[in-house]
Amino acid sequence: MKVVITGAAGFLGTRLAKALLAPNSALPVSELVLVDMTAPAYQPLTTTGIPVRALALDLVAPGVAEQIIEADTAVFFHLAAIVSGNAEKDFDLGFRVNFDATRAMLEAARRRASNMVFIMTSTVAVYGGKLPDAPDEDFAPMPQTSYGCAKAMAELLASEYGRRGWADARVIRLPTVSVRGGRANTAISSFASDIVRETLEGRDATVPVPPELCMWLTGPATVVHNLIHAATLPARAWSSRRVLALPGLRVRARDMVAALGRVCGPPCAARVRWEAQPRLAAMMASVPARLDARRALELGFREDESYDDLIREYIRDDLGGRIPE
Amino acid sequence: MKVVITGAAGFLGTRLAKALLAPNSALPVSELVLVDMTAPAYQPLTTTGIPVRALALDLVAPGVAEQIIEADTAVFFHLAAIVSGNAEKDFDLGFRVNFDATRAMLEAARRRASNMVFIMTSTVAVYGGKLPDAPDEDFAPMPQTSYGCAKAMAELLASEYGRRGWADARVIRLPTVSVRGGRANTAISSFASDIVRETLEGRDATVPVPPELCMWLTGPATVVHNLIHAATLPARAWSSRRVLALPGLRVRARDMVAALGRVCGPPCAARVRWEAQPRLAAMMASVPARLDARRALELGFREDESYDDLIREYIRDDLGGRIPE
Repeated sequence: MKVVITGAAGFLGTRLAKALLAPNSALPVSELVLVDMTAPAYQPLTTTGIPVRALALDLVAPGVAEQIIEADTAVFFHLAAIVSGNAEKDFDLGFRVNFDATRAMLEAARRRASNMVFIMTSTVAVYGGKLPDAPDEDFAPMPQTSYGCAKAMAELLASEYGRRGWADARVIRLPTVSVRGGRANTAISSFASDIVRETLEGRDATVPVPPELCMWLTGPATVVHNLIHAATLPARAWSSRRVLALPGLRVRARDMVAALGRVCGPPCAARVRWEAQPRLAAMMASVPARLDARRALELGFREDESYDDLIREYIRDDLGGRIPE
Repeated sequence: MKVVITGAAGFLGTRLAKALLAPNSALPVSELVLVDMTAPAYQPLTTTGIPVRALALDLVAPGVAEQIIEADTAVFFHLAAIVSGNAEKDFDLGFRVNFDATRAMLEAARRRASNMVFIMTSTVAVYGGKLPDAPDEDFAPMPQTSYGCAKAMAELLASEYGRRGWADARVIRLPTVSVRGGRANTAISSFASDIVRETLEGRDATVPVPPELCMWLTGPATVVHNLIHAATLPARAWSSRRVLALPGLRVRARDMVAALGRVCGPPCAARVRWEAQPRLAAMMASVPARLDARRALELGFREDESYDDLIREYIRDDLGGRIPE
């Protein structure tokens, strides 16, 4: 089957592409199309011989959606997004990518009339305001960020195209992915990765929220597994409700630092500085620290075991198993 | 203050304009701009001497939003909409008016930087799927019509522009307005008015839903009063949650016909034919027959007393108080 990934040069996109090209991939990929603003750096990751096209494209430019959604496109992973901090600073860019690009993809799918599987990632940041401990899918989104708002609107639109039979739309609300390798990004939640990545490199890291603040986290390997699982589930699993909350770990900021000390040693934990930034802390506190993900677990989605394991996963996958001296 | 009404040639728009031009209007209108696809038929409705401009404009055409939202526009009633039945038949037209036009208005308000009061009407049709008896504002919209989806998206967008401080956005979810005078419209719920208007004219009327189906109704006078009330409330009433469910009457289809017999006489009730149309009945059954409107009542919005009164209101306001022979 022909598979497309947007945002393919990003952190998740790169890992998803690698997983889809692996010999034991759960999706029988016959061709992979990788799309991002800059062409995803493609190197033959496997010896499976699957053809890969890497394209640098602006998703909302005229004709682009039709170019990348072809009559035989079977699965479309729509990961392209402007993350929370950036979308808050640049409203227009955020809405252009997080909403308009999604709309353009859904419209192209409709015109192809192939009812392709359309996987879209969404976020806990659709929620805001006065929240129960663990909102379930019946709880109304009330976003307090432009990122969350654009995603909440895109969720509704994808569900509508699904209801109309124009795309087999499947939206998954992801916990914050941590530990992220590579550069720090401009997501508000970026510190959850910084404290591991930076301190392991011998640099200080700042936690801009109070120690008691809780986050909803998942590891990159689990997310990639769950993205593929979302695509392999039968259509009937998605027909009545197309937005699904994925499982995650509820972790207190203080406990993240404690885990860092346990797994990487006290010197790493000592490099963490607590400097609450009121505006950012308020934005973090406005999203839930746990979602009711029982439906996802019933559908066979995977959950992580502990934050300690997420740190170990980073050391294993990004540092080759060795903690830097 | 300068006030704009879109959809001003429609059923509610016409009545709202009349109320705003009346000497006892609760809003001190200094200029009224009426906008619709065809120029609203304006005749000097009052002797108050308030200047009125009637414009025929396509709201999503370039420059139109900036033309009708001026630096001194104080209150903007955005009533323009493609109703449910029509939006289901013509998805593109529905989204263009129900979503894109709303977005264009909000964008123009943002550029004017005047934080004008932006009143938008929404609908119980944002809800769908498995519903509690009376969803409150924390219950998640899951629209089962294109009309409901576009309105749910527009609600989120208006709330976001409100959060950003770009418009004093105030969204009210209206019950079905009944009894509507004039021609039958293509709303799915149109029969709730047809059974009164048509049978009073001596024609048969068809109820396309089962007798036990319940609807959530309000009368035109109450809606106009509540639209103006929404605009006169202080900004703080809207700052934490910009979407509000208005009160209504929960009425069973069978009881509508019984009320018709009581108020207009048995011959009228005898002209009603029951012919359930499965697809339409399913769409009607997918929306709630009651909303939790306690917050609106606390904020001083008005509620109707009985469906009998709604029929009497129609006879008084549309038929000059006389039941046709």
